[in-house]
Amino acid sequence: MSTDPTSADPGTVYLVGSGPGDPELLTVKAKRLLEESDVVLHDKLPGPEIIDLLPEDRREDVGKRANGDRTPQSEINERLVELAREDKAVVRLKGGDSFVFGRGGEEAEYLAAHDVPFEVVPAVTSAIAAPAVAGIPVTHRDHASSVSFVTGHEDPTKPESAVDWEALAATGGTIVVLMGVGRLPDYTKALLESGMAPETPVALVERGTWPDQQVATGTLETIVDARDEVGIEPPAVTVIGDVAGTRASVVDFLQNDYGAVGAGEEVRSDR
Amino acid sequence: MSTDPTSADPGTVYLVGSGPGDPELLTVKAKRLLEESDVVLHDKLPGPEIIDLLPEDRREDVGKRANGDRTPQSEINERLVELAREDKAVVRLKGGDSFVFGRGGEEAEYLAAHDVPFEVVPAVTSAIAAPAVAGIPVTHRDHASSVSFVTGHEDPTKPESAVDWEALAATGGTIVVLMGVGRLPDYTKALLESGMAPETPVALVERGTWPDQQVATGTLETIVDARDEVGIEPPAVTVIGDVAGTRASVVDFLQNDYGAVGAGEEVRSDR
Repeated sequence: MSTDPTSADPGTVYLVGSGPGDPELLTVKAKRLLEESDVVLHDKLPGPEIIDLLPEDRREDVGKRANGDRTPQSEINERLVELAREDKAVVRLKGGDSFVFGRGGEEAEYLAAHDVPFEVVPAVTSAIAAPAVAGIPVTHRDHASSVSFVTGHEDPTKPESAVDWEALAATGGTIVVLMGVGRLPDYTKALLESGMAPETPVALVERGTWPDQQVATGTLETIVDARDEVGIEPPAVTVIGDVAGTRASVVDFLQNDYGAVGAGEEVRSDR
Repeated sequence: MSTDPTSADPGTVYLVGSGPGDPELLTVKAKRLLEESDVVLHDKLPGPEIIDLLPEDRREDVGKRANGDRTPQSEINERLVELAREDKAVVRLKGGDSFVFGRGGEEAEYLAAHDVPFEVVPAVTSAIAAPAVAGIPVTHRDHASSVSFVTGHEDPTKPESAVDWEALAATGGTIVVLMGVGRLPDYTKALLESGMAPETPVALVERGTWPDQQVATGTLETIVDARDEVGIEPPAVTVIGDVAGTRASVVDFLQNDYGAVGAGEEVRSDR
């Protein structure tokens, strides 16, 4: 049973999030299951520090295939069922949390439809953690009474875009965009056109909690330039809203020193 | 430095989230800091299983005072600074994540303004984890391309309410309400009046990941009755959106057996 914390059950699939990348931000349960399981299916997103913890003979990379294409989700689903039916204790490891833009929901449905018992192990999501370690709370009594998480890989100028940027702007809360480095110019423009103030603070946090974390800060109008100046690359999280402006007042005393200070702010000699 | 994973630094405050309540969902870092710190300031929200892990001589309850009133945030802020200036390694422990409706942002600003070094230790937020262990992914490729988190303790009928339910409904994404048991009738009404479909699935998860977890499911129209039938009490998380409907298709194979199955769904003999 899941309530027995002493072993991973054979024939069971554990849908486990790895958190944002720092191995110390794995949950106690995720760490135990990585040690106890027979096989771990993963891609590159958990980050090198966590993947290096996994013994090579117990891990399967189901990210990119030899030809560079992404492994189809259907193939991953089938492999999970196959391994469980071989009575393996299987961990499906995702970067961040499996249920926040991680397709964990689809895997859960597939497993249930194929009579495979599974357990969900929630994790620290990068959407909250990357801003947090950069000194940005996604909610704040003075600044934001709601926070919305969206993916930024869709083209907001296309009518079939599922993300309603105008409605998100109208909430008045913080907006956190995952996978939104490339389309930053598109959705900042969409938000400006929705009436959001040009001086709204924006921060980009690349590889939050990784040793090479980078941060760029600016406003809805300046963040694209700041991105280019720092050279922010995926994976990164975009934080849009007044909370992004709080970093400036705390960064001198913030000890979460995962990486360098980026563009859009003074580089301080004490860091 | 924060990058030294071998000890808690004297004179430093660690703003640590405890996660949803299951001690195995503490991060490795939170667990270490709870062991290494000189003093832990907490309230009741981390839950009995985690609070019981803390030695009594190293913990201070800063939740309710003897007369039953909540300790003012200003007093907690001052106590954090006082302890840090005594060269203590201080953990400020919050239920869930400190930066998601946890006032961690205010504490960070106060510490910085008083020259106290601090570190943020992100956590598993109940807003994602409670639904997850009940079989509900807050995002899903087929159902929700965004998710918004709000607090439900405001009166949505008052004009000064900071939460714009109409805008949240317009996003088309999942809405997760924290602290929203009492005002459930008010905000479900507000969402219906905003044009959200009456048959929109809704789930309530009380004490997610605690041994006495309870779940109630229904729709925007029926969830208040389901809440009363199960007797859902705070703390609980409300999930509104099509994702809440996925639980029914996976619950038979879901091994996260933290508590009983609730009203609004068949109680299955195999659980």
